[in-house]
Amino acid sequence: MSDTDDGGGQELGITESKAHKPGEWYAEVVQKAELADYAPMGGFIVTRPRGYAIWERIKDHLDGWFKSSGVQNSYFPMFIPESYLEREKDIVEGFDPEVAWVSEAGHEELEERLAVRPTSESIITPFIARWVRSHRDLPMRLNQWCSVVRWEATDTKPFFRTKEFLWQEGHTAHADEDGAWTETMARLGQYERLYEEVMAIPGLTGRKPEHDKFPGAHTTTTIEALMPDGKSVQAGTSHYLGTSFAEAFDITYADVDEAERTAHTTSWGLSWRAMGALIMTHSDDQGLVLPPALAPEQVVIVPIWQEDTEDEVLEYSADLAADLDDEFRVHLDDRDERNPGFKYNEWELKGVPLRIEIGPNEVADGEVTMVHRPDGESEVADRDAAVDAVGEALDTVYAKLYAAAEATLEENIREAHGRDEILGTLGQHGGYVRTGWCGDEGCETEIKDQIAAEIVMLPLDRDEAPVHDTCGVCGEPAADTAYFAKNY
Amino acid sequence: MSDTDDGGGQELGITESKAHKPGEWYAEVVQKAELADYAPMGGFIVTRPRGYAIWERIKDHLDGWFKSSGVQNSYFPMFIPESYLEREKDIVEGFDPEVAWVSEAGHEELEERLAVRPTSESIITPFIARWVRSHRDLPMRLNQWCSVVRWEATDTKPFFRTKEFLWQEGHTAHADEDGAWTETMARLGQYERLYEEVMAIPGLTGRKPEHDKFPGAHTTTTIEALMPDGKSVQAGTSHYLGTSFAEAFDITYADVDEAERTAHTTSWGLSWRAMGALIMTHSDDQGLVLPPALAPEQVVIVPIWQEDTEDEVLEYSADLAADLDDEFRVHLDDRDERNPGFKYNEWELKGVPLRIEIGPNEVADGEVTMVHRPDGESEVADRDAAVDAVGEALDTVYAKLYAAAEATLEENIREAHGRDEILGTLGQHGGYVRTGWCGDEGCETEIKDQIAAEIVMLPLDRDEAPVHDTCGVCGEPAADTAYFAKNY
Ligand SMILES: [Zn+2]
Ligand SMILES: [Zn+2]
Repeated sequence: MSDTDDGGGQELGITESKAHKPGEWYAEVVQKAELADYAPMGGFIVTRPRGYAIWERIKDHLDGWFKSSGVQNSYFPMFIPESYLEREKDIVEGFDPEVAWVSEAGHEELEERLAVRPTSESIITPFIARWVRSHRDLPMRLNQWCSVVRWEATDTKPFFRTKEFLWQEGHTAHADEDGAWTETMARLGQYERLYEEVMAIPGLTGRKPEHDKFPGAHTTTTIEALMPDGKSVQAGTSHYLGTSFAEAFDITYADVDEAERTAHTTSWGLSWRAMGALIMTHSDDQGLVLPPALAPEQVVIVPIWQEDTEDEVLEYSADLAADLDDEFRVHLDDRDERNPGFKYNEWELKGVPLRIEIGPNEVADGEVTMVHRPDGESEVADRDAAVDAVGEALDTVYAKLYAAAEATLEENIREAHGRDEILGTLGQHGGYVRTGWCGDEGCETEIKDQIAAEIVMLPLDRDEAPVHDTCGVCGEPAADTAYFAKNY
Repeated sequence: MSDTDDGGGQELGITESKAHKPGEWYAEVVQKAELADYAPMGGFIVTRPRGYAIWERIKDHLDGWFKSSGVQNSYFPMFIPESYLEREKDIVEGFDPEVAWVSEAGHEELEERLAVRPTSESIITPFIARWVRSHRDLPMRLNQWCSVVRWEATDTKPFFRTKEFLWQEGHTAHADEDGAWTETMARLGQYERLYEEVMAIPGLTGRKPEHDKFPGAHTTTTIEALMPDGKSVQAGTSHYLGTSFAEAFDITYADVDEAERTAHTTSWGLSWRAMGALIMTHSDDQGLVLPPALAPEQVVIVPIWQEDTEDEVLEYSADLAADLDDEFRVHLDDRDERNPGFKYNEWELKGVPLRIEIGPNEVADGEVTMVHRPDGESEVADRDAAVDAVGEALDTVYAKLYAAAEATLEENIREAHGRDEILGTLGQHGGYVRTGWCGDEGCETEIKDQIAAEIVMLPLDRDEAPVHDTCGVCGEPAADTAYFAKNY
């Protein structure tokens, strides 16, 4: 416990290196920046206020976009009767989620076991079927923000691998394929926008190979982000489900001509893995780094005073804080018992994008000194223009984060052809390797068995010509371009 | 299913009477106004978009007040290990919640059963203990919005009695009794404000008798609301827990003088029962009635046209909708296939507070006709002044709802003394009966056994002189004023 103590200066900082021990470093950042803690049960975490505040902002952005594009929030039970899940198993081969079962409740054995929802298609789809009668009820777009449980037995990695995780799941029904496809791509586009505009991470969008689709889906699209350790993270997926779920659960509607037709459905979800990707992408050996849109505090003001300058420095700082408060989330750190150096370290650890230092010089010159969290660059602005200057500095911080992530991504998409070259490139650099692919799962298996990398995506456009004429693994004619990568 | 069909006119309206069959009427309003539906498992409901939108607005109001008074949101696991619950059982006599247990997961038997959280004191308190070191960490105020499960075997009544329900639970730690008491009362005050300002329901605040406190609490305070059927609903409680939880879970801190002291804690929660109370209080035989602050649509514009007036009426209506849109949630119902009468009924059923009718006369006179949902009163305003007029009309609708609920409450607090008078008054009128009480649970039991009413609260002020010198049931000296009522 003493390692989470933010009262003792020595234990405050990050001791692991991002470059050399990314796993340990990540765990340390999460704990010391007070984002999460480990729960008593393996695989579960406690999301602390500073972590939850980031998730809330991710949620607010997406939720606003969802609502303004016709999505309605709702809430379905956290339990799903076993027979409902079985029904889904019948439809969709390969659906056998590792679920947690409730079989006793209220001191009695239940007649039917209840699964804690691993995802909610099997309970939401029958209700959509019940509520949709006519073409006028379509499109129907439901979403819920909730937690789901998947009992995968792996090491806990906060936000990346936990048995319970927070997410949103959207489920929609449409009159035809066109409507459902547009929906699928619109949600993928909103995930991409979240990554780029809010999280300052360029995402790669694509579709999953046939053998890795969501069971029952016609097409699974994905947004992948490259982590600094060279692995790919999938935090959001958007599925065009065709009519498979609608047929199984009987979502039919009376069309304009009174004919009964079957709806086309979609589902799409983004989990708190996005938060894991965020933390891992931008943070450094000083701790957390956050883009301004998601930071609990966007600006921290640290006054620097001696006994004889205390009053003027504190007054100037408080006045500045009040000025900035309308437009930004500002914190004035006027604690008496800590020195400025300690404060700098603490707020760097916690990821505040912009620090403003106010000492007697700033007061005398009518200025403010601003320091960018990502690279420590400092700039001076006139006190009178502080509001605009802070806005610009925050935009600059965002731009720096995005540019760095973009450069990393661009450097780490490589082409390779031939089994040895693919393995060699992945082994040496990580990142994405693009190659031709015949479409046979066996060719993925060959790479996977050697280096634990898989095909994380294919291009969205099915008609795009493959990067090579032949499969990079077997040499047969290529049908697609495959992106191989290790992943989380 | 055909009873939820809003496509067929005949089935649309409410058929049950609020006065004569309040239970059936309530269930019908909930379903036909599309607030909720019944899940396949008894005791569970599906919260539909129109219902969830009300809950989201309740949540947004409270959450804003919480945040601006120092509360931080967080998220704790939905499961609690059995040993953690047992630990709470040891501390607090009488804590034996009816929980749902997960004992198998991922195709294996678990070593320790996990309870689906019935409330989270037993998992949140140990973490507060871990995070609190010094007086500088206090007060610590955590809250989570989540669902909880209590396996009570009763008939399902959406939002009132469900095995899974949505709520918020706040958990705080303070340096001393004073801080914790202030917190307890501040949260109760915010619940009261929610009821009054947002839900248009006057609440009664009080404390629970000793034998009905939250197990382990020093004092349980409650907000009670009177339903039109004469029963009381408790939707929010705020507990001052003293040091019992802090001692059991070891929440100690180093004070300014470096001495180790024990914290005082509180917890407080409000569930979607508040929504049940809202629906039941204001709605009528035409359907749902909502206060403007919570209505998904605050204003519906219904254009009334003949073929020759269609263009001018629709244009005038669309222009009005655009004008109102900045300040209000407005819906223009310009459906071609429905007549105005059908639309009136539908929006009355769905609880839109204000209807604006626009026909050729309104266009010709440059006016708008506004109809108040609660009583059908109509008023005419100048088109040019429509934005202000709508704001005032919505305020009036709120005031009407509040006044009606207040009158009902005032009429239904009666004094009685003596077993027969208490039983007679409760039997004849329902509502609250105030009487002297000796403090003995047996005196409550006597009434409860006869008429299923209990002491729902005592005055908040422990020093307030009892309404009678002697106990209304046994005649011994009275220690308190008791409020007897039937309840949900
Ligand atoms: Zn191949
Ligand atoms: Zn008595």
